[in-house]
Amino acid sequence: MQPQVIGVDLGGTNIKCALVAQDGSVAHRLSMSTEAEAGARTVAQRICQAARQCLQQAGRTLEEVAGVGIGSPGTIDLAAGVVTFSPNLPGWHDVPLRRMVEEELGVSCALENDANAAALGEAWQGAGREAGSLVLLTLGTGIGGGIVLDGHVWHGSKGVAGEIGHMCIDPDGPECGCGNRGCLEAYASATAMVRRLREAIDAGAQTSLADRTEQLTARDIHRAAVAGDETARQNIAQTGRYLGVGVSNILHCLNPEVVAFSGGVTAAGDMLLEPLRQEVAWRTMEHNRRGVQICFAELPDDAGIIGAARSFMLR
Amino acid sequence: MQPQVIGVDLGGTNIKCALVAQDGSVAHRLSMSTEAEAGARTVAQRICQAARQCLQQAGRTLEEVAGVGIGSPGTIDLAAGVVTFSPNLPGWHDVPLRRMVEEELGVSCALENDANAAALGEAWQGAGREAGSLVLLTLGTGIGGGIVLDGHVWHGSKGVAGEIGHMCIDPDGPECGCGNRGCLEAYASATAMVRRLREAIDAGAQTSLADRTEQLTARDIHRAAVAGDETARQNIAQTGRYLGVGVSNILHCLNPEVVAFSGGVTAAGDMLLEPLRQEVAWRTMEHNRRGVQICFAELPDDAGIIGAARSFMLR
Repeated sequence: MQPQVIGVDLGGTNIKCALVAQDGSVAHRLSMSTEAEAGARTVAQRICQAARQCLQQAGRTLEEVAGVGIGSPGTIDLAAGVVTFSPNLPGWHDVPLRRMVEEELGVSCALENDANAAALGEAWQGAGREAGSLVLLTLGTGIGGGIVLDGHVWHGSKGVAGEIGHMCIDPDGPECGCGNRGCLEAYASATAMVRRLREAIDAGAQTSLADRTEQLTARDIHRAAVAGDETARQNIAQTGRYLGVGVSNILHCLNPEVVAFSGGVTAAGDMLLEPLRQEVAWRTMEHNRRGVQICFAELPDDAGIIGAARSFMLR
Repeated sequence: MQPQVIGVDLGGTNIKCALVAQDGSVAHRLSMSTEAEAGARTVAQRICQAARQCLQQAGRTLEEVAGVGIGSPGTIDLAAGVVTFSPNLPGWHDVPLRRMVEEELGVSCALENDANAAALGEAWQGAGREAGSLVLLTLGTGIGGGIVLDGHVWHGSKGVAGEIGHMCIDPDGPECGCGNRGCLEAYASATAMVRRLREAIDAGAQTSLADRTEQLTARDIHRAAVAGDETARQNIAQTGRYLGVGVSNILHCLNPEVVAFSGGVTAAGDMLLEPLRQEVAWRTMEHNRRGVQICFAELPDDAGIIGAARSFMLR
C-alpha cells in the first residue's frame, strides 16, 4: 500500500489538515487558527504543528507518510515552492513556504494555489471523479477558479491560469477590483450580489431587505428569497444568468466534462442553478454543451485538503 | 531519419498538400480545387490524388512516408476519424474521411479540425515554436480558434474546444449566427467589421466607403484606412479593442505563452494590433499578461499543412 499524504488547506483564518490515502479517502481531519497576523514563520510552524497533531491522532509518524501537500491562497511560484504574494495573508511576499515546511518536518512538500487545489480535489474525488476535465468556480467575496485537464491542474505559463472571475462579460460593465471592467466577479460574487441589491433598492424596488442595506450579505439575500422576497429572488436568478454567460464561454473555449461551483453563494441552490443552466442552454452551441455536467461541488469542505494532497502525489 | 508525413489542409475551395519532415520543414507544396459540390467521395479521392502528386514531385512512394494528416473544416469525431458536420463542405454528415483515405492509399491517416491543425502548426513551427502553449484565433468571415497546451491540441470532452469566436463579450450584444448574443465573432470578424461600418454610415459618419456599402469587404476597410479614412481607421481600432477583450479573457483563464492571429483581417497590421495590445494591457492582471506574446501568426500559408502532419505524428 502506498503511504498516505498530509493535505493542508491554508486559509486566512484557519489551517485545515487531514491524512489523505492514495484512494482519496480522508481521515483525522483537524482545524486550527492560522494566526496570519503573526507572520509567515509562525504560520509555517502552525502548519507543521497541525501536520504533527494529525499524525498523532492517527498513531503514525512522519516516517510513515509520503509527504505534505499545501494549498495556499495567493500567487504561487510553483517551481520554487514560494508564495509570491497573497492578499489574504498580510505581509506575505516571496515566502518560501515549501522549503520552510520541508526543513521543519524533514519530509517532501508540494505547494499549490488553494483554488487550484480545490479544483483538483473535486476533479479527483468529487464532481469530476468520473471525468478527465473539470472547471471549478468558487463563489464567495470574489470568484476564484481552477482548471483541471486530463487529471492535472492547468497552470499556464506563469502559474496564474484559472482566474475565471476576471473574465470580462461586458466591456463597459462595472469596475472590478482588478482594474478591469465588467468582470464576472463584478456581477456574480457575493459582493456584487449585495451591490446589485442596493442598486435595486435605490431604484425603488420593494424588498424586505430595504431597511438593512448597511450590513447586508449574500446570505441575507438568500434567506429573504426563501421567505418569498421577489427582489431577492430576482437578484439570485440574475446572478445565475451572469454565471451562465461565463460558463457558456468556458464550454466554448475548453469544452470540459464538468463545471462545478463551490463557495457561500451556492447556498442559494436551485434558485441559482436553474437560471444558470437555462442561460447556458440558449447561449451555447449544442456540440459544446452536450453531456457537460453543470453542478455544485460535492466536497465543499474537503476539496482543498484532498486536492493539496493530490498535488503532492502528482508532483 | 524518421519518414516524412503528408500534410493536407482541406478547405471548401482548395486542397493544399505538402510533405512535412519530422523537423517541421515543408517541401513539394501543391494545391488543387476541392470540388466540394461533387460530394465527399470525390473530395476524398482528390485528397488521395493530391497526396500521390505530392509524392511524385518528391520522387517518393507511399511506402516511404509514415502516413497522412488531414485538417478538415467542421466538427470532427476524433476517435472515429469522422467529419460529423461541416458548414463549408455541403452535405457532409458523418463522413468517415480517415477510413476513406486509408483504404484508398493504404497508409495510416489522422484527422483533425482545420483550426486546431493551424494552431498546432503555429505552436510547433511558427509563433509558438519556443513556447509550450499557444492560442490561435483565425479572423475571417467568422472567428475560429485552436488551443495548444503542452504541445498538444486541447480538444475538450467532445472534441469541440477552441470555439473562441463564440465567447460572449456582451450578454446583450448583437445576435450571432450560432444563436448566442454578443459573441466575439459578432464584433471582430470581417463580417462584423463590415456590419459596423455600415451602421456608422447609417449614423452619418463621413467615409470614402459611403457609396459602396453593398459589396463592402474588410479589405476595402483596410485600404480606405491606409488612405487616411478616419471612419475606417476607427473601425479597425475598435475591432482591435474588441479582440483585446477576448484575449484578456484568454490570458485570465488559460495564461498561455502565445496568443496569435491569422486570417484575412490581420492584413490591417499594427492598426489592429496596437489597440488590441493596449486593451489587453489595461484589462489584464499583471501576473496574467507578463511575458505573454501577442502577435500575428508566422505561418499563415503553411500552418494548416504543418499542423495536420504534426497531428499525425502525435496521434
